[in-house]
Amino acid sequence: MVRQKLNIITLGVKDLEKALEFYEHGLGWKRSVASQGDIVFFPLGGIILALYPRHLLAEDITINDDGKGFAGITLAINTKSETETDDILTLVQSLGATILKPAQKVFWGGYSGYFKDLDGHIFEVAFNPFVQFDDNDNLIM
Amino acid sequence: MVRQKLNIITLGVKDLEKALEFYEHGLGWKRSVASQGDIVFFPLGGIILALYPRHLLAEDITINDDGKGFAGITLAINTKSETETDDILTLVQSLGATILKPAQKVFWGGYSGYFKDLDGHIFEVAFNPFVQFDDNDNLIM
Repeated sequence: MVRQKLNIITLGVKDLEKALEFYEHGLGWKRSVASQGDIVFFPLGGIILALYPRHLLAEDITINDDGKGFAGITLAINTKSETETDDILTLVQSLGATILKPAQKVFWGGYSGYFKDLDGHIFEVAFNPFVQFDDNDNLIM
Repeated sequence: MVRQKLNIITLGVKDLEKALEFYEHGLGWKRSVASQGDIVFFPLGGIILALYPRHLLAEDITINDDGKGFAGITLAINTKSETETDDILTLVQSLGATILKPAQKVFWGGYSGYFKDLDGHIFEVAFNPFVQFDDNDNLIM
């Protein structure tokens, strides 16, 4: 059993400034103060939309962005421990998902892995020790 | 200004039964009673994950699923009127988005259109007269 929750939708973008013109200035969406550097977060109430340079997203997943197959979008399940991350990746692999990046310590201080489901949709399973959850398992951002 | 909200993530799937083996039986996620026919909804708290046959999703967007460019995933903004749908599509077009399907009456009884953002991510903007929103603008499902 996996908590019935997704925490972050990440859109890979070619030009972050142009994407911000669209989402932040154009739609009028307010960024989270947790935004930093190349990543900008928009809390949507129950899930967070993140904008992140597409080549860095591909690099984080450890796949080639060669125009074939990488949709440039990921869905993140945020876990509450490294063990939960491991358990989910083990489960989804047993269900036929493909592990794209085994769970590991990552540069931003968390512990994360990626899988793709039976249809190639890419999910990150991440433990971030710097975030907190509210009572509805939403990330507080 | 557009309400800072996304309501539905739709994953196009090649084989709905296999996808249900993964999400419903494998992960243990509970479907909404609003699921019917070829579409299955999983409420995630703040957003809904939908599984829908990929070829029907492409057909709904009115694009070819020729292996080039269609990521097989859409994000939906649910509006509260046909006018709001029109207004959002007009706004995003003025911001450089591409209208894939002008807003129109659709087979399930709603009024919907599709656009892609500057990076090709596909959004539906839909008024569904049969759904209600809670106080946080979440669809009640």
